[in-house]
Amino acid sequence: MPPQNYHPPDFTSPPLVNSPEARFAAVPADGVLPEGFFSTSNLPTYIKAGGRWSLPTRPRMDCAIRRVGATLEVIEPRRLKRGDEIALGLAEDGSEGIYVHSAGFLGGARSANEFRFMSSEVSRERPVNYEELAARLIEEKTRGGFLIWVAGPALVHSRARGDFEWFIQQGFVHAVLAGNAVAVHDIEAAIFGTTLGMSSTGQPTDGGHGLHMRAINQVRAAGSIPGAVEKGLIRGGIMHALVTRKVPFVLAGSIRDDGPLPGVFTDSLAAQDAMREHTVKATGAILIATALHAIAVGNMLPAYHTHYEGVPTPLMTICVDQTEFVVNKLKDRGTHQAYGVVTNAQDFMHVLRFYVEKGMAA
Amino acid sequence: MPPQNYHPPDFTSPPLVNSPEARFAAVPADGVLPEGFFSTSNLPTYIKAGGRWSLPTRPRMDCAIRRVGATLEVIEPRRLKRGDEIALGLAEDGSEGIYVHSAGFLGGARSANEFRFMSSEVSRERPVNYEELAARLIEEKTRGGFLIWVAGPALVHSRARGDFEWFIQQGFVHAVLAGNAVAVHDIEAAIFGTTLGMSSTGQPTDGGHGLHMRAINQVRAAGSIPGAVEKGLIRGGIMHALVTRKVPFVLAGSIRDDGPLPGVFTDSLAAQDAMREHTVKATGAILIATALHAIAVGNMLPAYHTHYEGVPTPLMTICVDQTEFVVNKLKDRGTHQAYGVVTNAQDFMHVLRFYVEKGMAA
Amino acid sequence: MPPQNYHPPDFTSPPLVNSPEARFAAVPADGVLPEGFFSTSNLPTYIKAGGRWSLPTRPRMDCAIRRVGATLEVIEPRRLKRGDEIALGLAEDGSEGIYVHSAGFLGGARSANEFRFMSSEVSRERPVNYEELAARLIEEKTRGGFLIWVAGPALVHSRARGDFEWFIQQGFVHAVLAGNAVAVHDIEAAIFGTTLGMSSTGQPTDGGHGLHMRAINQVRAAGSIPGAVEKGLIRGGIMHALVTRKVPFVLAGSIRDDGPLPGVFTDSLAAQDAMREHTVKATGAILIATALHAIAVGNMLPAYHTHYEGVPTPLMTICVDQTEFVVNKLKDRGTHQAYGVVTNAQDFMHVLRFYVEKGMAA
Amino acid sequence: MPPQNYHPPDFTSPPLVNSPEARFAAVPADGVLPEGFFSTSNLPTYIKAGGRWSLPTRPRMDCAIRRVGATLEVIEPRRLKRGDEIALGLAEDGSEGIYVHSAGFLGGARSANEFRFMSSEVSRERPVNYEELAARLIEEKTRGGFLIWVAGPALVHSRARGDFEWFIQQGFVHAVLAGNAVAVHDIEAAIFGTTLGMSSTGQPTDGGHGLHMRAINQVRAAGSIPGAVEKGLIRGGIMHALVTRKVPFVLAGSIRDDGPLPGVFTDSLAAQDAMREHTVKATGAILIATALHAIAVGNMLPAYHTHYEGVPTPLMTICVDQTEFVVNKLKDRGTHQAYGVVTNAQDFMHVLRFYVEKGMAA
Repeated sequence: MPPQNYHPPDFTSPPLVNSPEARFAAVPADGVLPEGFFSTSNLPTYIKAGGRWSLPTRPRMDCAIRRVGATLEVIEPRRLKRGDEIALGLAEDGSEGIYVHSAGFLGGARSANEFRFMSSEVSRERPVNYEELAARLIEEKTRGGFLIWVAGPALVHSRARGDFEWFIQQGFVHAVLAGNAVAVHDIEAAIFGTTLGMSSTGQPTDGGHGLHMRAINQVRAAGSIPGAVEKGLIRGGIMHALVTRKVPFVLAGSIRDDGPLPGVFTDSLAAQDAMREHTVKATGAILIATALHAIAVGNMLPAYHTHYEGVPTPLMTICVDQTEFVVNKLKDRGTHQAYGVVTNAQDFMHVLRFYVEKGMAA
Repeated sequence: MPPQNYHPPDFTSPPLVNSPEARFAAVPADGVLPEGFFSTSNLPTYIKAGGRWSLPTRPRMDCAIRRVGATLEVIEPRRLKRGDEIALGLAEDGSEGIYVHSAGFLGGARSANEFRFMSSEVSRERPVNYEELAARLIEEKTRGGFLIWVAGPALVHSRARGDFEWFIQQGFVHAVLAGNAVAVHDIEAAIFGTTLGMSSTGQPTDGGHGLHMRAINQVRAAGSIPGAVEKGLIRGGIMHALVTRKVPFVLAGSIRDDGPLPGVFTDSLAAQDAMREHTVKATGAILIATALHAIAVGNMLPAYHTHYEGVPTPLMTICVDQTEFVVNKLKDRGTHQAYGVVTNAQDFMHVLRFYVEKGMAA
Repeated sequence: MPPQNYHPPDFTSPPLVNSPEARFAAVPADGVLPEGFFSTSNLPTYIKAGGRWSLPTRPRMDCAIRRVGATLEVIEPRRLKRGDEIALGLAEDGSEGIYVHSAGFLGGARSANEFRFMSSEVSRERPVNYEELAARLIEEKTRGGFLIWVAGPALVHSRARGDFEWFIQQGFVHAVLAGNAVAVHDIEAAIFGTTLGMSSTGQPTDGGHGLHMRAINQVRAAGSIPGAVEKGLIRGGIMHALVTRKVPFVLAGSIRDDGPLPGVFTDSLAAQDAMREHTVKATGAILIATALHAIAVGNMLPAYHTHYEGVPTPLMTICVDQTEFVVNKLKDRGTHQAYGVVTNAQDFMHVLRFYVEKGMAA
Repeated sequence: MPPQNYHPPDFTSPPLVNSPEARFAAVPADGVLPEGFFSTSNLPTYIKAGGRWSLPTRPRMDCAIRRVGATLEVIEPRRLKRGDEIALGLAEDGSEGIYVHSAGFLGGARSANEFRFMSSEVSRERPVNYEELAARLIEEKTRGGFLIWVAGPALVHSRARGDFEWFIQQGFVHAVLAGNAVAVHDIEAAIFGTTLGMSSTGQPTDGGHGLHMRAINQVRAAGSIPGAVEKGLIRGGIMHALVTRKVPFVLAGSIRDDGPLPGVFTDSLAAQDAMREHTVKATGAILIATALHAIAVGNMLPAYHTHYEGVPTPLMTICVDQTEFVVNKLKDRGTHQAYGVVTNAQDFMHVLRFYVEKGMAA
């Protein structure tokens, strides 16, 4: 909140010196405005009337401007009476005699028509264009791109597991970067039908708290994840699909890990090195329900790639999370190109698959 | 954090006096446990060995218990060596010589097997059972139930509008309780194709900030929402479906309202009275993306109804929100029966419709 | 949402068979209730009147029960007229002729007086008892306890850095478990006065994005963090206080790390082993603004310790985060004993220090 | 995610045509960079070497640029060996032979040095400058400003009640705009010492769920809030301070209200009209822990006022909430001038008071 000096508009030079008088029209019925009324914002707004520019009194947004004699007042439409005189106009740049001075406190960087709603880039209230996301995935696949998927364990917890498996089977996944927990939950689900002892419909089970430890132990006994797939211990799910489809994956260790599973990179620098061999190939990245891995991969990802004929091309970066916070944190750590989708991981996978299936059929 | 005194278990009385010795087995390979190992929790855990009960040292969860001579130690499985002796058992009630004393600090209300993961009722990590939700909606419709839908403006913003319209058309909606904004956004979308000036793909538009005021003004000029439908001003969307399908709705006014639209109850007590005539009929309620209206309706809703042959029956109450906070707040205001779905309103409507369509076809 | 059968109360056995008739009194003025009125919940509520028990119509919470002839109706107090007859009573167990049947759908586990507001354990709406927290810290220090502090980088970002330093200097910190980023931000602040290039009043600075890399590089050139303190490169802040006060710390590496700083455990298993040597000594833990480290440490922490004369004693576990989600996730990962404080890390440290200073002076 | 064409820099015209060659220096020790190293971002970055500009391979942020023969590569500092050649420079505008092409995909609106961390305006990770907030409050009071406070019930729940009372007593509060619930909780606390039946240390109490109804009833019996103060029913707290200090307040009704208390504006349009008579006088607004009231007042507030000698002056607008979402929603509804403080209402009031007391003493 720096102290800010007000710079009034220059009404003595073009274009404002040439502005016409503002137009006014009568209210046709109590609380009903004439078509073409001027709708206010909360910024300093000058009206040219009687040859001079002035600010109406009682400014606020979403109102009309009423003229009573020489006075101009901002007023709620519902309070107007039939016959009241109201300013008309859609333009805010003075060309209709009304000038919204958005640059008054802000220096010259702002344009007219600056005032708007819903200007946050990342918001649960912003619609997600799944058609476009699906089209982009299909295009990347068709074009021979390299899509890396970065996932947190919520993806497995919340039954998006089957949808992720589908994307792998269909060839939309060229590398998976995740942690020990994603594989642990997925393999617990494959062996026991639970994740952290919770059933697939979300019920906790007695004695369930040890099941992930038993799953880890069985894979350790088998020697490796591919070994456990081969031996038939793991018969479905994400890790099964990755192994059988020969899609590369990096499981990076963390201090939260139980086990860990064989094959997990317990050294974080070795993990970074392994991950980066995939990020340098990436033409797109989908980051779902993980702050740690999303930001780690975001740090490694350029905002562009040159894999399509050497021309710098924006690297499609989609970040899906339940809250705006993780997406904004990713941006605040430099991954400004991220397109945020604020939703539940399970529902995202489900709806995205639905649109990709539709797009593939078209 | 009240000071808590520890009450040790009574090992001199049944059932614990009759417990067998704990069993131990050798580790078959470095870092690999024998099947049937005991997996620890963080609660006081007594082992019966050599005729006496003792607590192992270095307690923590997700570990094994190793015996070295007379000593028992909690240790990470990865640190074990081939031949180390490890406690076995699945039971935590002493019947296998291991007793988890969950009631030590807590009084007698806790059972054995108390320790578990994922015990929060409301969590984005808990899978949503859409099949069951869809089945319940279909059952209520079949049975002649009365479903009230309570919606916030995010439902319209985020393109779930078409899905909500579908539910109305299909007869799953028996009353809608909402605010002025839901109708304003819906009607702005019907007339101008935008909500708060944002396009259906989420782009802000210049000059868009006045469009909701223009939409309101046109309906005020038409005299009423049904009048605007009749005149062809409103040709689709939620309000159009409600009017043409003759589904009752209550639009309750608030201090945030622009306009308001004709028909909005500006008096909050009159609005409450109108809403309650619907809540007393309800056999189910779906509350989506609104704290104010969800809690207002939650206050009015009994936890049960007697509309099915006079027998008290739980009143299905589903609360959908982007964050756990709103659902928990609803519960904290007494609507303890609410089943929370933590997701984006747009995706919820989309996936729910998908499963209801599937269920209807079945 | 399992199907639930209703089990009506048994009015033919004690205690309900002995219940008196409910009492009623007249409303003294329009919309004003007599003292001692019965205030409803949303649970099935039986009234004994005329020798028989019945459910009033139109149930809802926060209302009164009006008798009109043989009819009992739940009604908003504001709708009552002078002279209306209203049920009286505070007890919900039938002892005043009113019985709230909370166990109707739920089995026998629920008590009377079950209905309440604000039953969530973790909520931003729940007051934080800083006096008690401060008293607990002082008590642990006095008693020779071992307090481990687990911190995320927000603690440094947001200027709680000076307060954390104060707690270290005053002897309230016996080990710090954190990641590379905490030390990096702290040392960037010590050398350049910024964190991630942002000034201490929150302004981004041009060229600031490289400052954390320059800070890391200088410490790497110095060979170690203690070396950098000795050489006068680091003259204040958290790491300076830890080194000069000889408080042990573990910096656990992660895949998000830049650098890393010398001394960071890059192997996650080595980091776990180092951390656990502190958690086994802990009599208390304060986890602030970190999901990864809080859950990692939570996994290692028993819910109790035996460091005070061998008696199992609850291990004070405080988890501070901006959202309920992290605290509940920690609980969902088994650290059920965590006491949640839902606030900003900066403000928490500031207010806690204020109360500890007050407590120390007392 | 619009398709974006890449516009390469123009290296044939000034200023880039005049850029010098990039400078390089040798790495002094394994993993240690020379001072003045260039720290990368994720944007297209051109290096002038051997008379021509090129993009290094393997781009990412937070790295160095190594020259190996004619090749330039982006590499993690830790992977460098003594003697490796590294690019030097702080400038990103070509003046040191390195050019970060931030406008490549974005058109001409971006400047050099565009890449930065922590660019979100509203974030829990951004430090709050309480000294400045306190100074502003003191300045407004000294200058004869008009400060409106808009509060949600969390302010009362969470024990900031005493601090709010203090601000009223000290003359920092010129009008309060709130809802029925704020007054109900405050008066429940004054009469019974609880809020929604929860004690001041956060414990639920049996039978507590009716206490707010009993508090409302007693005030209704007294006829008005000022009447209840006069009769000694209300002896402290927020409403008591407002009444005795004759600070005006507007309690706006909503559909969530119990009661309501006498004096609440149950008609939302009447409430808006009453509120606006205060917002037109405002020189500053503090909005705490309420989405409904904050946005309602935000709609009415101009972004500036003319109460200081008629000169447009920014209207200080502070919005305090537990999550970024509410602040961003307020901005998305047009109140773009809001300064967001992301913290707990209780702690905000406590810390702010601490700094105001300090500022007043200075």
